[in-house]
Amino acid sequence: MLKEWVKEEIPSVEEITERLEKARAALAVRQTAIKEKGLPVLVVMDGWGAAGKGSVLGRVIKGMDPRFFKCETLSKPTEDETRRPFLYRYFVRIPKQGQFSFFDGSWMGEVTANYLQGRVSAEKYREHLTSIKRFERQLNDNGYLVVKFFFHIDEKVQRHRLEELEKSKVTKWRVSEADKWQNKHYKTCLDVYDEYLETTNQFVAPWYFIDASSKKWSELQMTEILVASIDTALTNMEAKQKPPMLQNVFPMKSIPKLSEIALDKAVSEEEYKKELDQLQRKLCKLHNELYLKKIPVIIAYEGWDAAGKGGNIKRVAAALDPRGYEVHPIASPEPAEKARHYLWRFWNRLPKDGHIAIFDRTWYGRVMVERLEGFCSENDWQRAYNEINEFEKELADWNAVVIKFWVQIDKDTQLARFTERQNTPEKQWKITEEDWRNREKWDLYEEAVDEMLQKTNTRYAPWYVLESNDKKYARIKALKIITSAIEKKLDEKKKD
Amino acid sequence: MLKEWVKEEIPSVEEITERLEKARAALAVRQTAIKEKGLPVLVVMDGWGAAGKGSVLGRVIKGMDPRFFKCETLSKPTEDETRRPFLYRYFVRIPKQGQFSFFDGSWMGEVTANYLQGRVSAEKYREHLTSIKRFERQLNDNGYLVVKFFFHIDEKVQRHRLEELEKSKVTKWRVSEADKWQNKHYKTCLDVYDEYLETTNQFVAPWYFIDASSKKWSELQMTEILVASIDTALTNMEAKQKPPMLQNVFPMKSIPKLSEIALDKAVSEEEYKKELDQLQRKLCKLHNELYLKKIPVIIAYEGWDAAGKGGNIKRVAAALDPRGYEVHPIASPEPAEKARHYLWRFWNRLPKDGHIAIFDRTWYGRVMVERLEGFCSENDWQRAYNEINEFEKELADWNAVVIKFWVQIDKDTQLARFTERQNTPEKQWKITEEDWRNREKWDLYEEAVDEMLQKTNTRYAPWYVLESNDKKYARIKALKIITSAIEKKLDEKKKD
Repeated sequence: MLKEWVKEEIPSVEEITERLEKARAALAVRQTAIKEKGLPVLVVMDGWGAAGKGSVLGRVIKGMDPRFFKCETLSKPTEDETRRPFLYRYFVRIPKQGQFSFFDGSWMGEVTANYLQGRVSAEKYREHLTSIKRFERQLNDNGYLVVKFFFHIDEKVQRHRLEELEKSKVTKWRVSEADKWQNKHYKTCLDVYDEYLETTNQFVAPWYFIDASSKKWSELQMTEILVASIDTALTNMEAKQKPPMLQNVFPMKSIPKLSEIALDKAVSEEEYKKELDQLQRKLCKLHNELYLKKIPVIIAYEGWDAAGKGGNIKRVAAALDPRGYEVHPIASPEPAEKARHYLWRFWNRLPKDGHIAIFDRTWYGRVMVERLEGFCSENDWQRAYNEINEFEKELADWNAVVIKFWVQIDKDTQLARFTERQNTPEKQWKITEEDWRNREKWDLYEEAVDEMLQKTNTRYAPWYVLESNDKKYARIKALKIITSAIEKKLDEKKKD
Repeated sequence: MLKEWVKEEIPSVEEITERLEKARAALAVRQTAIKEKGLPVLVVMDGWGAAGKGSVLGRVIKGMDPRFFKCETLSKPTEDETRRPFLYRYFVRIPKQGQFSFFDGSWMGEVTANYLQGRVSAEKYREHLTSIKRFERQLNDNGYLVVKFFFHIDEKVQRHRLEELEKSKVTKWRVSEADKWQNKHYKTCLDVYDEYLETTNQFVAPWYFIDASSKKWSELQMTEILVASIDTALTNMEAKQKPPMLQNVFPMKSIPKLSEIALDKAVSEEEYKKELDQLQRKLCKLHNELYLKKIPVIIAYEGWDAAGKGGNIKRVAAALDPRGYEVHPIASPEPAEKARHYLWRFWNRLPKDGHIAIFDRTWYGRVMVERLEGFCSENDWQRAYNEINEFEKELADWNAVVIKFWVQIDKDTQLARFTERQNTPEKQWKITEEDWRNREKWDLYEEAVDEMLQKTNTRYAPWYVLESNDKKYARIKALKIITSAIEKKLDEKKKD
């Protein structure tokens, strides 16, 4: 899993500084909260030699109250510790309620080094992996928050850093024989670490990779993840929910709130016709290429009633070869669907490769209508953010183009459209009592949508807001996003 | 983990037949229960070619109502399925609420074969492992019971079976090229399977190994595990507990209820003196050997008040070199102990290798006094059986001798001893108000103790009941058990 890990682009120095300030303040607040609530937090820091764990830890604890955390440097076991059972030295160091323990190095280092150096057999090594999984799960089950970081640098960076450290007498002592061995056998170590990380990557104690190319950036990643993890743990503590919420492990993009989105965007009739025609032609051509390259496309539409989803979808579909796409209108689930995992009906509607599936309303119903109408429990919809991120990760891993549209209008525009529907005989079928009822819950929906956008705007399946007070503008924007996403994927495919 | 797996000794034909009859009846009852409660059950059967999965499945479903289960044979994906995302073909086949699905072959077969045959890269393979873990956890989180079996036979048995099948025209078709390839590369396959099993061995969906050396025995193992797993899932469904109970994965021994234990055993004064002397000399010698061989010993005493634990421990300790043992009387936890995982204080008291630790009361307080006095939640003590089994597994894996004594007396004997203590000035300190209060709860305690014995009598750390109406008998018995357990371990060590 480390090998497939895609690093986030490093933000600008200004952004790092700004976010770091916020994150540090947030961590200080969380420290008080864990003290008050009695949450014990175990932070595990593993990684490559010279990745800078120690100095990052130094930075992280700088702003913390020293009475409420402990740092443990866990390198070689003492003679006494080697005579105790496996994990003894870690178990006896677990934090008290309301306290942090930072482990600089952990059981990971111990077992992987022993295995790599041939001091334990493959069988014993696997037995230790089982023990580790049990240990970490038990801590979680007993109310501990366990956050595990792996500080990652590549072979070259490590070699360079070790050489630099060795040059000066002041820092020479920090380069151990183990570090040198590791760099010499980087590839072998990477293989073993990768397997270790995958095996011990439990939902109750997931791994976070830290791009350790710079100290400030490392500190930022670590602090932000710590804050988010503590929030999850505190939620679980209060809610006593089953199953507990999981820590988020997916890379997210930030996204504005609905109220921050300007809706005055429009397009002239002339421009619209021209662009529509061009984009549809382009999409038609791309659809052909998709088919040949066997790339699947999934386009998800969500939005307010009367926001113009239907018309938008129509303009997209019009460009497509009917043999190669399907539109799935999503209504309430059938009995056979209700009796299964709520994502089952969407799995069943996934396209073949080379095909396009357009969903008119989607799996996000779980965190909107099902949430607000009480069709599922609070635990169900809270859990769903992560479940949906996992679902879309499957689609992304399958190399699908995943596009999610939120079709946005303001409340007045909705009212105008509702009224028009009501007053136009051939449009009356489009407006129901339910639409009016939903409209009354606008604010609740808006809150739910904002939360949904924040929690599911992953880097691999981001949301796009279509400003649809002017439906034409929204259609052109949708087509632009679709065509450029497909082009991007086709380019990637060519590079392979 | 498959490699370290120790097969259970195969019971006699009579025992198998008898247990099978019970297990089949139990499964039929469970089928009705899952139907009523709406529990969806997904049973996954993987394993070596020619391990007999198909025919065992045939046997298991024989007694079941065909309206409420489905069997899916999942070998090669169809052309259509290969054009869908990974896991698609499995997700669309998940059972409805109240139904069983039996998967003969699963995603395990697909991904390991692809990896072994070089059709996917190591990176892609690991990505699939992550997907599988998510899939199985999501099912569990959404109320599914997932039970995974791996049917195991060794290389020779597989070769023999494949040869036998090939001999006859009637069965020849059942031998696939993949089976032959597997047998030819048995060792390589075993390595890959072992890693796969370890990685995907999640607490919410654990692996069970089936010794597939005979059909009836396979069926028995599978049926008994199914029944136990369904019971766990039904408990979780009703209790809505957090965290949910886990399926038991440890090999258990049966043990009688306290009420079934005869307490008329006694020993004459003369015999006692003779045996005590001999056994203590022997233990003393063994203690020396232990020390040299660095074998740790943990002796846990639990039992009724006034059952004679103290005197029993005294006779054991008397034989030991004081530099090599420690007795830990366990009272209520200190504040620093209360603020941590309840096993922390026991980890802290574990001996060094070559040393003996005797616990006068133990970690089993969690499922006795803490349970009955409400010092922990129901979920806490219910979870503790598994947590304790895991803890003792660590001790066993450390190669410790683990001996657990339940010191048993009847209610009248306790009364007599209490009264004597009360009436003897120098013994009055031994009897408190609390003892009398506990005595009033005898029946509740007995129930808790019975449950504890049933659920923690693992093969690697079994309980021994000491019949202690005659304290002398109990002391001799304890010494005999301790000395023979140590001798056994020393013998094992010699063989290594």
